[in-house]
Amino acid sequence: MLSKFYVEEHIKRALMEDIGFGDITTENLAQESDYLTAELNTRSNGVLCGCDVFRLVFEVLSDKVEINFYFKDGDLIKKGDKIAEIKGPAKDLLMGERLALNYIQRMSGIATETRKYAQAIKPYHAKIVDTRKTTPNFRAFEKYSVQIGGGALHRFNLSDCAMIKDNHIKLAGSITKAVTTLREKISFTHKIEVECDTFEQVKEAVNIGADIIMLDNMDNKTMKEAVEYINGKAIIEASGNVNLETVNSIAACGVDIISSSAIVAKAPTLDLALDM
Amino acid sequence: MLSKFYVEEHIKRALMEDIGFGDITTENLAQESDYLTAELNTRSNGVLCGCDVFRLVFEVLSDKVEINFYFKDGDLIKKGDKIAEIKGPAKDLLMGERLALNYIQRMSGIATETRKYAQAIKPYHAKIVDTRKTTPNFRAFEKYSVQIGGGALHRFNLSDCAMIKDNHIKLAGSITKAVTTLREKISFTHKIEVECDTFEQVKEAVNIGADIIMLDNMDNKTMKEAVEYINGKAIIEASGNVNLETVNSIAACGVDIISSSAIVAKAPTLDLALDM
Amino acid sequence: MLSKFYVEEHIKRALMEDIGFGDITTENLAQESDYLTAELNTRSNGVLCGCDVFRLVFEVLSDKVEINFYFKDGDLIKKGDKIAEIKGPAKDLLMGERLALNYIQRMSGIATETRKYAQAIKPYHAKIVDTRKTTPNFRAFEKYSVQIGGGALHRFNLSDCAMIKDNHIKLAGSITKAVTTLREKISFTHKIEVECDTFEQVKEAVNIGADIIMLDNMDNKTMKEAVEYINGKAIIEASGNVNLETVNSIAACGVDIISSSAIVAKAPTLDLALDM
Amino acid sequence: MLSKFYVEEHIKRALMEDIGFGDITTENLAQESDYLTAELNTRSNGVLCGCDVFRLVFEVLSDKVEINFYFKDGDLIKKGDKIAEIKGPAKDLLMGERLALNYIQRMSGIATETRKYAQAIKPYHAKIVDTRKTTPNFRAFEKYSVQIGGGALHRFNLSDCAMIKDNHIKLAGSITKAVTTLREKISFTHKIEVECDTFEQVKEAVNIGADIIMLDNMDNKTMKEAVEYINGKAIIEASGNVNLETVNSIAACGVDIISSSAIVAKAPTLDLALDM
Amino acid sequence: MLSKFYVEEHIKRALMEDIGFGDITTENLAQESDYLTAELNTRSNGVLCGCDVFRLVFEVLSDKVEINFYFKDGDLIKKGDKIAEIKGPAKDLLMGERLALNYIQRMSGIATETRKYAQAIKPYHAKIVDTRKTTPNFRAFEKYSVQIGGGALHRFNLSDCAMIKDNHIKLAGSITKAVTTLREKISFTHKIEVECDTFEQVKEAVNIGADIIMLDNMDNKTMKEAVEYINGKAIIEASGNVNLETVNSIAACGVDIISSSAIVAKAPTLDLALDM
Amino acid sequence: MLSKFYVEEHIKRALMEDIGFGDITTENLAQESDYLTAELNTRSNGVLCGCDVFRLVFEVLSDKVEINFYFKDGDLIKKGDKIAEIKGPAKDLLMGERLALNYIQRMSGIATETRKYAQAIKPYHAKIVDTRKTTPNFRAFEKYSVQIGGGALHRFNLSDCAMIKDNHIKLAGSITKAVTTLREKISFTHKIEVECDTFEQVKEAVNIGADIIMLDNMDNKTMKEAVEYINGKAIIEASGNVNLETVNSIAACGVDIISSSAIVAKAPTLDLALDM
Repeated sequence: MLSKFYVEEHIKRALMEDIGFGDITTENLAQESDYLTAELNTRSNGVLCGCDVFRLVFEVLSDKVEINFYFKDGDLIKKGDKIAEIKGPAKDLLMGERLALNYIQRMSGIATETRKYAQAIKPYHAKIVDTRKTTPNFRAFEKYSVQIGGGALHRFNLSDCAMIKDNHIKLAGSITKAVTTLREKISFTHKIEVECDTFEQVKEAVNIGADIIMLDNMDNKTMKEAVEYINGKAIIEASGNVNLETVNSIAACGVDIISSSAIVAKAPTLDLALDM
Repeated sequence: MLSKFYVEEHIKRALMEDIGFGDITTENLAQESDYLTAELNTRSNGVLCGCDVFRLVFEVLSDKVEINFYFKDGDLIKKGDKIAEIKGPAKDLLMGERLALNYIQRMSGIATETRKYAQAIKPYHAKIVDTRKTTPNFRAFEKYSVQIGGGALHRFNLSDCAMIKDNHIKLAGSITKAVTTLREKISFTHKIEVECDTFEQVKEAVNIGADIIMLDNMDNKTMKEAVEYINGKAIIEASGNVNLETVNSIAACGVDIISSSAIVAKAPTLDLALDM
Repeated sequence: MLSKFYVEEHIKRALMEDIGFGDITTENLAQESDYLTAELNTRSNGVLCGCDVFRLVFEVLSDKVEINFYFKDGDLIKKGDKIAEIKGPAKDLLMGERLALNYIQRMSGIATETRKYAQAIKPYHAKIVDTRKTTPNFRAFEKYSVQIGGGALHRFNLSDCAMIKDNHIKLAGSITKAVTTLREKISFTHKIEVECDTFEQVKEAVNIGADIIMLDNMDNKTMKEAVEYINGKAIIEASGNVNLETVNSIAACGVDIISSSAIVAKAPTLDLALDM
Repeated sequence: MLSKFYVEEHIKRALMEDIGFGDITTENLAQESDYLTAELNTRSNGVLCGCDVFRLVFEVLSDKVEINFYFKDGDLIKKGDKIAEIKGPAKDLLMGERLALNYIQRMSGIATETRKYAQAIKPYHAKIVDTRKTTPNFRAFEKYSVQIGGGALHRFNLSDCAMIKDNHIKLAGSITKAVTTLREKISFTHKIEVECDTFEQVKEAVNIGADIIMLDNMDNKTMKEAVEYINGKAIIEASGNVNLETVNSIAACGVDIISSSAIVAKAPTLDLALDM
Repeated sequence: MLSKFYVEEHIKRALMEDIGFGDITTENLAQESDYLTAELNTRSNGVLCGCDVFRLVFEVLSDKVEINFYFKDGDLIKKGDKIAEIKGPAKDLLMGERLALNYIQRMSGIATETRKYAQAIKPYHAKIVDTRKTTPNFRAFEKYSVQIGGGALHRFNLSDCAMIKDNHIKLAGSITKAVTTLREKISFTHKIEVECDTFEQVKEAVNIGADIIMLDNMDNKTMKEAVEYINGKAIIEASGNVNLETVNSIAACGVDIISSSAIVAKAPTLDLALDM
Repeated sequence: MLSKFYVEEHIKRALMEDIGFGDITTENLAQESDYLTAELNTRSNGVLCGCDVFRLVFEVLSDKVEINFYFKDGDLIKKGDKIAEIKGPAKDLLMGERLALNYIQRMSGIATETRKYAQAIKPYHAKIVDTRKTTPNFRAFEKYSVQIGGGALHRFNLSDCAMIKDNHIKLAGSITKAVTTLREKISFTHKIEVECDTFEQVKEAVNIGADIIMLDNMDNKTMKEAVEYINGKAIIEASGNVNLETVNSIAACGVDIISSSAIVAKAPTLDLALDM
């Protein structure tokens, strides 16, 4: 998901943001010949995510930095673990440190948060997925992290899956009309999901052949009835009021997918640090 | 801080990210003549932040969307408040909705979190400030939100203030040498901050004339002694272990500035929604 | 599909390509006060496509150009039809003419070519669709034109639908393993298509539950058997040897989709001209 | 003409277009350790063009792909020829395949089409050249291909040669005035071409010293008279109604240059394929 | 030459360079309601150049700034002249002031310097032209200014006119071979210039039909002989040791063109200021 | 200051500007196998500046060019000195020559001019610094050159130091109010400078605690009084009427900083040339 050419471009812009006219401290104190060895250590437990991005920050800055990772994306790491060793010119290490950490801390934070939800619903076949509530211009990094944390993925953006929400239903006249129109107009390679607030809507959506049915903010009882009614004729996504307390009982309703913006939008960063 | 030409560019890239080859649902269900009125409502209490960015998302998409805000950046908003009314083509509203919310929810989330810290230290003259631990390519939005939330600002990036950390001290030989070298080499318009782990370092930094002294991860007792010793000869920043539980007692030590990455990196988004 | 902000960006780059350091002829012969009226006329029969892009070229150059279209995208136009009238400064009309035509001629050419295929299979329920064999950095314009010409769309790129080709089968071990792995790993919002060269492969793909089955380069007899076997359990795409002579008989086999790179890659431009 | 830094930038944008959020099929089926060997084969006769661009697509994606070409740009290739061998990680080969082919197929298609015209006029000293009717943001690739196919080049864009068309003549008052004004105002390094519809215009253009005279849509008889009249005092370009049937007789009129948009705008792609 | 879409892009990048994270002085002192009136005055005599660019800087920043120019590009301005009046929000005026001046001061400086050379050779038919020795990424602005100052233009870049220098001669074997090869290979719309150090070279270049002959660093006596020898068969450019003292005597040799990097590279900026 | 990723991007854009559709001379005369050796020589005395940028131009073009520098940035060079030896493909050397020289000549020109000022005030502790009067989108190169020439630096842009000018004073009401407001609102990491025209203003600025006081266009007598009055309580910058004749007497007034736009804006380029 994170193509090298895409990440490299993102990093260059971010270095511009963080360095601007130069690192006035380091450029004036470090000599060309000063070399450092640093350790990437973790100060919390979590899921590691973003190793390649971390590495690429230093590669964009310099061709003299060597990095050895002792863990890889998806590994569980424990407070005190030495994640990687980095050797190179002091100047490059000090100038890239903050940005490299900014990427890996956010990515690992999301992976870690996602894993909590994934673990919470492990007994059930439901999967936890993300939403489009992401940080502008940072979505690819966030979706990748969800996947690394054991989550599955929702659609990438507005173009790869149709999602009929209440306003679309009003515009079309009914769920039936909306699905029929889209089936005719969108690519045969794309699915159609219908957001349903009521059991009646679920029935209509199933009968017109929606590929995916979202049970939006329903209580568990209604969700169970919906699952029973749908009975494999569509993929079922539960949405709304999803948190670590509720997610298990939602999964217990038999849904296939539970979507949550919280695993991205409310995930705290993971405390990783570079000790030189 | 958020120049229009900069934000516009950011929005265009983000629309590309979220729309890609098109909104296959909306483009196929909404007619040119379909118009909608929507309300931006808040579902939580907090500090509003990002109104201009929200508005600009729709302006980039269309010149037919009208938005009236009933609150402005920095206003306290309460669950249920109607923040704004938006009228325009259904197509433009539905295509811009998610991105506009993604900006304003994150920005308001940070402003809201910052305000908690600012309130917690109100009795003291200390200010809460952010750090460089920001989301790559989203820093300007985050710093602006801190300010709106009642926080003050740390340096923007590596180029506008020198910050001597432990590794710089090692490279230079001593705090004294580092400060002396920088004073000679950096612009006279820039300040020098020294990160101190011990009282001994504080003394050395004060005596060589550092403009700002950071007390890094010190206990409150040592901080108080440091504040007394420094006695107005430098601005004093406290850093490390800052959270809502500790921040008041840190402020009570008499420091000028308390920096916290948490107000940005661990702030949950604020729940705002567009109801059409 | 063609968002204004995306097209505008494309046009600016293309104007740079075509104007470079300036239009040395026009800039030196046209006065600010010289105004022209021009007609966009067609010298061939076809399907009009690209009106908004045509208009936007002049809007990027100037805010003084007025354009009235007498036809709209998708309309059938006949040799001699007056498509639009353009009034504005001579300088802007002459500088934008070529680029505006380059867009609309290519787009109308593709729409026109597509329509021929769509007409050829009208008696059947099959649809003609495009492929990923597009001009680099011009895909959105090409796909839009296919749609305007009466075609349907295949996936946009590698990220919105899984397509298992022979090499993927080899990597996975079998069609069954490939589909199973993908079903587990990709987003539930994405479909899986399997490219089948033989009837045996079709059987395997249907039985493992592929959403779409591509009959690749099969003769009509095998295709008919495949269609019968599949019997609605998957969408059926025919591919290979598709041209205006063969397309009708392929459609007659009962497939749902016929994909052809020719409607884009081999479509001649449509002869439209600006007469001033 | 195709500078590496320019092509690389073009490829990155095109990869973004074709890969988006990732190749969901390949990324989920290919292991890091899977390596493939592929052959680039041709399924038609033609002129090969675009080897360096083809290679660069894979170099942008990966530094582990090795490519050996058995032919070079400009070589005649015959159905069944093995053009190149490519070895590398399955993931990189499968992700770059389509884009690399999209470039080389279009470029070879244009070179092949151009060669037909060049062959058709071989007995005469006339050369076939392209026009500005190119695909927006793809001109450099198209002009390069014309050259490889044995064509010569017209001006690159509006800035490197003045071309006085009928509207310019109207703006200036007469051919004489237009040429005189331009001679005074444009760079001495640039030539002036005049588009002439009639023999009278040819006379006026020659006598005022135009560097190049375009005979626009003239019948062969008039063209011959014009050639005789001009008699080496200007370069002569024939334009209009140029196709494979007419080009030879136009060349026989004694003109120096025959320009045709068809060699680019109506050239079908050449069928090359990657067999793994 | 200075297309609006090109200049706008240049200005946005330059505003980013000059504003960065914001104008911390103005943003904190100016209220939305503060409006200012400013005068653009000149403190030196010279040629005004860059009015449209100056205006566009403020238009990019704001749609509330009004500017009235009392002079236009190319006008002679005298110390004390009021060039323009600008009204608008204090914030926008103060943030754009420096950049707008940076453009207009440089451009007017070049126009002014160029005019001195143009005046110095007025009695002769020679024209003063610029070279490729320009500021990277600022060439279009510089060439435009030369033209406004009464200069003519040399080629824009390496693609619009062939220039055979000593190294090219070595590569080709001789001037004759170089010209012959280029005549065959380059576009018929492009001219060929030959840089000659000796009278012998001039002869060879004339006889092989070079369009332009550069007399490089020749003394006036040799130049006169060369002019006589060439006798209208080619355009003659003098280059080398061109300054305000020598330019008149060089023009007196009868050359057509005198090229000088000094009019761009050594032109001081013109003192214009904004008085509010 | 000149990060590699930033300079590389700048070079790519500048190569596009200078090469456009290709170097029609070199590409048609140089074979792949033609190699050249060139010397970078200086034809004037001065301070060398821009070696890394010079090198990078060729690295962007080719990986086959080798460059050995015999001097480094900041070295004094004398007419006739051989600065560097460059070996590589003729094509790459000839295509990159002009741009590489355009950078190094401008940068060395500024460094050389700056050194004159620095030498002129050597007996005093004052430093010469630049201003924001730079070439749009070329500031980083210019500031770096000032530093190499022995100058110090003023603020980078509007975001890293507050500068209260006369208009800001009017907006705020008084110097005192302006300083007080800014102290409250800007980052504690940023300094405040006040531009003073009169001795009264100096007093007010010192007493309210401005970090830097600019003595704007004052006569030497007033400056001396101001220096005495300020007496170390603020850094003192002198501005206005600074040239090589006046700078020594200004420095003699005891100021800390003398700012001059002339060292950048009026510095002639240094004559360096590539001899092959």
